[in-house]
Amino acid sequence: MLRVLDERKSIEFYKTAFGLQIADRLDFKDFTLVYLVNDESDFELELTINKGRSEPYDLGDGYGHLAVSVTDLDREHARLQGEGLQPRKLVEFAPNGEKIARFFFITDPDGYEIEVLERGGRFK
Amino acid sequence: MLRVLDERKSIEFYKTAFGLQIADRLDFKDFTLVYLVNDESDFELELTINKGRSEPYDLGDGYGHLAVSVTDLDREHARLQGEGLQPRKLVEFAPNGEKIARFFFITDPDGYEIEVLERGGRFK
Repeated sequence: MLRVLDERKSIEFYKTAFGLQIADRLDFKDFTLVYLVNDESDFELELTINKGRSEPYDLGDGYGHLAVSVTDLDREHARLQGEGLQPRKLVEFAPNGEKIARFFFITDPDGYEIEVLERGGRFK
Repeated sequence: MLRVLDERKSIEFYKTAFGLQIADRLDFKDFTLVYLVNDESDFELELTINKGRSEPYDLGDGYGHLAVSVTDLDREHARLQGEGLQPRKLVEFAPNGEKIARFFFITDPDGYEIEVLERGGRFK
């Protein structure tokens, strides 16, 4: 669960970036909960929108990121740029000469980091 | 990915609480990465241990929690108590009279919140 400021912006981002659709939306007096899913995984992303909150959330330094995997990392990077989003540069992670992972990061409207990994090895 | 202070404590907690096992461990000069998995899900939890860090991480107020689901919530709550962990009280979430979810929260050694939901409805 992530707390976000602008429901519309966040839903648009997660739809465009990761094909996530609204599975459910629960609206209460003080807050709204939105559950986002896609067909590729049983993972759900829950967004909480606290009504009346306008101050940006403090993301701290403990929580790192969510991660998703894609089949074709280069194509996905290009697609996201084409959608007007700002994926950061492609990284090949090979600390001891052996490639462990290829990935890039992208930031959601509230600044949460999401790692997009190329599928392969353990990263299904 | 979550940043944690004490690798041993965190691995013990996630094993006891959720049956997560080490799928991989990558040790570098300044940090260690540990990947935790179980057989029930394709979800992976990545822990980062920054060497030399002793100050507790700032968890902020934006990131909410991870969530997992279990078949028998009461049994799981009792099991965790029996293991000496401190799951918080069982909650029935029925804001408008209709039960939406049953859950409890538990906190990992660094203070990260994890919601344990009873399976049913959308919560598989």
